[in-house]
Amino acid sequence: MSFNSFGRVFRFSTWGESHGPAIGAVVDGCPPGLALSEADIQPFLDKRKPGTSKFTTQRREADEVRILSGVFEGRTTGTPISLMIENTDQRSKDYSEVAKAYRPGHADYAYDAKYGFRDYRGGGRSSARETASRVAAGAVARLVIPDVDIFAYVSEIGGDAIDPARFDASEIDNNPFFCPDPEAAKRWEKLVDEARLDGSSLGAVVECVASGVPAGWGAPLYAKLDSELAAAMMSINAVKGVEIGDGFAAARLRGEQNADPMRPGDDGAPVFLANHAGGIAGGISTGQPVKVRIAFKPTSSILIPVETVTREGKASDIVTKGRHDPCVGIRGVPVVEAMMALVLADQKLLHRAQCGDEAC
Amino acid sequence: MSFNSFGRVFRFSTWGESHGPAIGAVVDGCPPGLALSEADIQPFLDKRKPGTSKFTTQRREADEVRILSGVFEGRTTGTPISLMIENTDQRSKDYSEVAKAYRPGHADYAYDAKYGFRDYRGGGRSSARETASRVAAGAVARLVIPDVDIFAYVSEIGGDAIDPARFDASEIDNNPFFCPDPEAAKRWEKLVDEARLDGSSLGAVVECVASGVPAGWGAPLYAKLDSELAAAMMSINAVKGVEIGDGFAAARLRGEQNADPMRPGDDGAPVFLANHAGGIAGGISTGQPVKVRIAFKPTSSILIPVETVTREGKASDIVTKGRHDPCVGIRGVPVVEAMMALVLADQKLLHRAQCGDEAC
Amino acid sequence: MSFNSFGRVFRFSTWGESHGPAIGAVVDGCPPGLALSEADIQPFLDKRKPGTSKFTTQRREADEVRILSGVFEGRTTGTPISLMIENTDQRSKDYSEVAKAYRPGHADYAYDAKYGFRDYRGGGRSSARETASRVAAGAVARLVIPDVDIFAYVSEIGGDAIDPARFDASEIDNNPFFCPDPEAAKRWEKLVDEARLDGSSLGAVVECVASGVPAGWGAPLYAKLDSELAAAMMSINAVKGVEIGDGFAAARLRGEQNADPMRPGDDGAPVFLANHAGGIAGGISTGQPVKVRIAFKPTSSILIPVETVTREGKASDIVTKGRHDPCVGIRGVPVVEAMMALVLADQKLLHRAQCGDEAC
Amino acid sequence: MSFNSFGRVFRFSTWGESHGPAIGAVVDGCPPGLALSEADIQPFLDKRKPGTSKFTTQRREADEVRILSGVFEGRTTGTPISLMIENTDQRSKDYSEVAKAYRPGHADYAYDAKYGFRDYRGGGRSSARETASRVAAGAVARLVIPDVDIFAYVSEIGGDAIDPARFDASEIDNNPFFCPDPEAAKRWEKLVDEARLDGSSLGAVVECVASGVPAGWGAPLYAKLDSELAAAMMSINAVKGVEIGDGFAAARLRGEQNADPMRPGDDGAPVFLANHAGGIAGGISTGQPVKVRIAFKPTSSILIPVETVTREGKASDIVTKGRHDPCVGIRGVPVVEAMMALVLADQKLLHRAQCGDEAC
Repeated sequence: MSFNSFGRVFRFSTWGESHGPAIGAVVDGCPPGLALSEADIQPFLDKRKPGTSKFTTQRREADEVRILSGVFEGRTTGTPISLMIENTDQRSKDYSEVAKAYRPGHADYAYDAKYGFRDYRGGGRSSARETASRVAAGAVARLVIPDVDIFAYVSEIGGDAIDPARFDASEIDNNPFFCPDPEAAKRWEKLVDEARLDGSSLGAVVECVASGVPAGWGAPLYAKLDSELAAAMMSINAVKGVEIGDGFAAARLRGEQNADPMRPGDDGAPVFLANHAGGIAGGISTGQPVKVRIAFKPTSSILIPVETVTREGKASDIVTKGRHDPCVGIRGVPVVEAMMALVLADQKLLHRAQCGDEAC
Repeated sequence: MSFNSFGRVFRFSTWGESHGPAIGAVVDGCPPGLALSEADIQPFLDKRKPGTSKFTTQRREADEVRILSGVFEGRTTGTPISLMIENTDQRSKDYSEVAKAYRPGHADYAYDAKYGFRDYRGGGRSSARETASRVAAGAVARLVIPDVDIFAYVSEIGGDAIDPARFDASEIDNNPFFCPDPEAAKRWEKLVDEARLDGSSLGAVVECVASGVPAGWGAPLYAKLDSELAAAMMSINAVKGVEIGDGFAAARLRGEQNADPMRPGDDGAPVFLANHAGGIAGGISTGQPVKVRIAFKPTSSILIPVETVTREGKASDIVTKGRHDPCVGIRGVPVVEAMMALVLADQKLLHRAQCGDEAC
Repeated sequence: MSFNSFGRVFRFSTWGESHGPAIGAVVDGCPPGLALSEADIQPFLDKRKPGTSKFTTQRREADEVRILSGVFEGRTTGTPISLMIENTDQRSKDYSEVAKAYRPGHADYAYDAKYGFRDYRGGGRSSARETASRVAAGAVARLVIPDVDIFAYVSEIGGDAIDPARFDASEIDNNPFFCPDPEAAKRWEKLVDEARLDGSSLGAVVECVASGVPAGWGAPLYAKLDSELAAAMMSINAVKGVEIGDGFAAARLRGEQNADPMRPGDDGAPVFLANHAGGIAGGISTGQPVKVRIAFKPTSSILIPVETVTREGKASDIVTKGRHDPCVGIRGVPVVEAMMALVLADQKLLHRAQCGDEAC
Repeated sequence: MSFNSFGRVFRFSTWGESHGPAIGAVVDGCPPGLALSEADIQPFLDKRKPGTSKFTTQRREADEVRILSGVFEGRTTGTPISLMIENTDQRSKDYSEVAKAYRPGHADYAYDAKYGFRDYRGGGRSSARETASRVAAGAVARLVIPDVDIFAYVSEIGGDAIDPARFDASEIDNNPFFCPDPEAAKRWEKLVDEARLDGSSLGAVVECVASGVPAGWGAPLYAKLDSELAAAMMSINAVKGVEIGDGFAAARLRGEQNADPMRPGDDGAPVFLANHAGGIAGGISTGQPVKVRIAFKPTSSILIPVETVTREGKASDIVTKGRHDPCVGIRGVPVVEAMMALVLADQKLLHRAQCGDEAC
């Protein structure tokens, strides 16, 4: 089956293809009375927008969102919020070759195997263009959790990582890589540009931190906060790995190293002396910052020929022309933030449903 | 909210606490007519059972499963299958100290923050004992996907990894670590035993492979096969990271390295020359083996004192006496296999719902 | 919470308000490869369209549907189908009075009590205009169940029922009441017109029959076919009662009268000698026609003054000007048909998921 | 698919067959901290228990419930509550004839058509015995809505209705029919006894009222309070019709008769001068009593022979020996109450999720 909805009580459904007339999201379950207009959503879409530097795809999309329902006199009504973004720069002529043969790394073959045929124009539904819908929905989610601060950044491109000692959150928006380490950003300019000129592509690691999450959000056992975050992040195009807190590094620690010791805090809540857990224990938030780390594979669309087969089963080579991101992880940053917001908004409402308002 | 159900059409719900009278699972949506008896489930529970070596907890549980419904004359009827395992070796007296103070790394504080109080006996609902229910449900799931072969193993303990060159699947059941490399297994004996004697614990990495999955399973976009697997694995106690295929390593590859080239196969389906993708593209299986890698943190129950606070907010130290696994990842192996089976059975049925029988 | 989605594997979500820029539906889980264009949907919308006779509201809406996604080269792709209908004849000026006081029988007070405020223009989200979205989604559902024939009709208006002896299905589309009894249709002209001129309104009973449903559809116990139909029909604006088969009349029968005797049929399947059950036993279809009966209350918008209170809690009278249906049940006919199709399409796919293709 | 779960955030799943070792329910999403023991559940089960008079089946079941999880030190923990009731009086020898031929009115043929075979002992999963699980779950639901008062009664048996003028709620528990009119109760003694001695059975109408429901519960559009109630009630064995408020009678009223006029109330909330709507407008509660009316068909198990076919497709007659209720609607009363409680508890939590604590 196709499942294009996410969330349990704060839910969104997305629709649309890379080269259709429009894409969109329907956000359902949003609390009433929140101030909302297009201006609350547009900045997040602008951050994800293609064509803003030579390090992203050259497809030009204004990505202007329209609110078609669910808002009256500037406030959410509690009914579904329909968000639509028109596609304006689709160039379907580029895709004749893709129609005939499968691009390795792409969903081409898998979609064909599942559905018997596919919309080959720009990857159709499997295109990362869909993530604009999530970003729009995520902007609404942020309004539900005003006390939570979410930010993400790229911590590694092509295996070249930032220096944690030089981490400076204020630098993230000062370079085209969402990089918090200005020196790494400089190196990446060269790295990404070289890959682009080679017709190749690079992978990346994105990290996301949500602070201000109170202790108590999360729905054990099968809607654990970390489980939901893992599902949310792994659903993003090109993502191949998700870590909570120390993630795989925790597997190399001993118990006493991995424990996050607690001390009495000023306000009654404990203070933690470490955060190996990434703010989640037993699937429930602890009040510490929630930390997620996400691996993006290199963009599968490259100009270097790769062996493939045609729909008729003949051997062939394929190069993917058209306009592509040399490192799709970069534009993953606002998408990761959106998914974090969408999961947390849902979990806040779920917690309120079961336990009442107090901890929210 | 509490969400103790997993799956969309093949679904299971689990219930029970570490020190209650019993634990169990209700499996719903199972196809009718499958041969099923307790003997089909018990071997998987035996594999997860505690107390089988000095490398696992010394709690003694027979873990005998009873089928209470959903089977008639030896076959599934298509109605809910209720599975129950009685707890027989709970020793609640061990937990008086846990009632008073929070064990760092455990869910103690988070559950208290969420629910206002908690069942402190053995972790209550947050105990890994719950995973027996999943293993029982997973045994039913395997019957739904008879053509799929699933196996998991430990590939790393405490940072000491197997040598892929020495990988031998037939060795996995020859040692108490589910280790496919006999030399690593020998080293781990010493490693785990030392940690145990120190009152410490170790983390581990588990890998799981499912072969025989046809191309076409997976439900884009928000029930992608990889997204569901990530949710499933991250919902297991102590898991902090999930990778599909190359995972984080893919973030360090270039596009042409990461592509899985295709060649024409004998039966019409393409042959892939590599499997960086772990058998999933665009959230849909490609027909290659599905590969997942999971990070388990070290057991949080250790005898080395850790700073903590009491429920009253006073500073304290805590050591976790009682019976615990020195490396909880080891017994994670049958649990990971079960979650793989549960996701795949669900996706098979979802695929059949939308696309009909042909590809199943 | 707001829950604007219906269905389990064949699902749809609707959005939009009476006086917003547009309304729409997103249909998810549709099988791939079905021929679909706007022309497959428009006739059903035309049937529901307002303004076609003096017996329905005079609001003029073209109700032209656009398919924004999920169809490629004339066939469904298996991905979400976004359907949009622009509102063109909203006249918000009519609703100043409604903003101040609650219209009895309408959702005005309940929405205010729930959400703290409401979109009062034409009832906002609670307007029957939303049913156009369902009708559009229902047209897609029909493609999933091509062997099922669905038709509905009005069997009673204002207490004046058709004569079953004069039932003629071919008459249904020959009068503005979807009435299968031409003599009743004549009487209703006068009846409805008098109510309209009085500024009053009338209730109606709609009956719906689906033939060609094979035995075996339905998902016991909590997604029984009759339970899903009851939910579906009761979710339609103004509906206050649902009967399956003989419904309340069955409560007055004795066991031997109510039994539907079976005789061997030519093709192996039994032949039933009666259909008191309305084609459903134990929540599962029996192969007989599925029969549902639905009660619509009289339109709540009337010109006769009714006692009410203002938002400020003051006593007041209200008459509902604007353009309204004198008998909202009439235009309920295509909506009821759509909900029948949507439930059956979902159940067909659910059945196929669990039991395979054979019975579909 | 089989769907044995109901509810959205306050959810329950049931399992078990008429003649298996036990039946049960798992209640999930229950708020923490509620006082709960078996003694809170048992009285409701006792009310539904068979064998208490000659007007119900003579099967003897103690129907003793055990709580297996989710409660610690007498309070709900917020984790799943597993409830189990052992079957003690199954007599499978009675069912050899049922194995061979289909009982008209029962689910026998439909289950066979769906699943290919069936547990024929006492109807297996389709037995009304399952309703004990609902009643147990409903007892937990009542704890979630302590300010709501729910009661149901039989208003009609075999077409013989109570006199509303003689309605006396205190009489309901004074007779074996849950009848609020003592004179009707007397007539029914004779009526039901005659049907029983004839080997026949009678239908019934049950009415249920929930008072104390605040305005604002309900989740438009596809989880409307009335829609959820319709689904809940129609999922009960033998139910063929559901009405909200005036139901089908509303279809015979004019708009001004059906309107529930409002006047200012003392506490700010409006006072309604009538309740044709049954306490629900636009799918949301209005603060008036929620009223539902349910039609039960006559018990399908009768001693009068009915024409049927065998599994092999041969003509046959069948009489259903064994122990059966002559009027299954009578014991439907506690089941209807339970479903009302289960829907309202869920809707309360859903409302709290979206809109916060205030209106709860």
